[in-house]
Amino acid sequence: MEDLLKQKCVACRADAPRVTDDELPDLLKEIPDWQPITKDSVLMLNKVFKFEDYAQSLDFTKKVAALAEEEDHHPAILLEWGKVEVTWWTHKIGGLHKNDFIAAAKTDALNT
Amino acid sequence: MEDLLKQKCVACRADAPRVTDDELPDLLKEIPDWQPITKDSVLMLNKVFKFEDYAQSLDFTKKVAALAEEEDHHPAILLEWGKVEVTWWTHKIGGLHKNDFIAAAKTDALNT
Repeated sequence: MEDLLKQKCVACRADAPRVTDDELPDLLKEIPDWQPITKDSVLMLNKVFKFEDYAQSLDFTKKVAALAEEEDHHPAILLEWGKVEVTWWTHKIGGLHKNDFIAAAKTDALNT
Repeated sequence: MEDLLKQKCVACRADAPRVTDDELPDLLKEIPDWQPITKDSVLMLNKVFKFEDYAQSLDFTKKVAALAEEEDHHPAILLEWGKVEVTWWTHKIGGLHKNDFIAAAKTDALNT
């Protein structure tokens, strides 16, 4: 994960390369708590963070939102009582770019 | 909607009454932009609020979260770029209580 944490999301064009099937397993090993999910045929990275109360959930949501603005890459953040579900993917390519793995690693680092 | 806005969510027990099929249409008329949806067999109230940028979406998310704490009733808030999807229901009764309609009306009032 250290390697991903040092990187920064790069601007992503519609013709930017998706992560290939060959690259996927190694990248997933770097963020082992994230699940690859498919929604509307789009591959995404998903993780549920649990918290003891709403204030903590909201605080984490704000941190992830600040990261999103900093990286200019925006996930879906589902805020509920006691949990926050974060989903990263790259809209423009309809799938996963390396950016999403960088962003997932940085999201984990916000929760320490 | 005015009538709902004046009310406050009441603490809800597991045996509190769900909104009945007879009451539902009149209550929905008071919050016409909200859609009744069913998820995992639970009836919920859902609305997507659109915004021009992420900062506005985040700002609205914070307002809804503050309302949730004030009413001690917590929705699911899905924050994405340019939109916030809010879903109200009452966990303890597995469906809709009048609280949810009050909370929906108050959510609309935050977006004016």
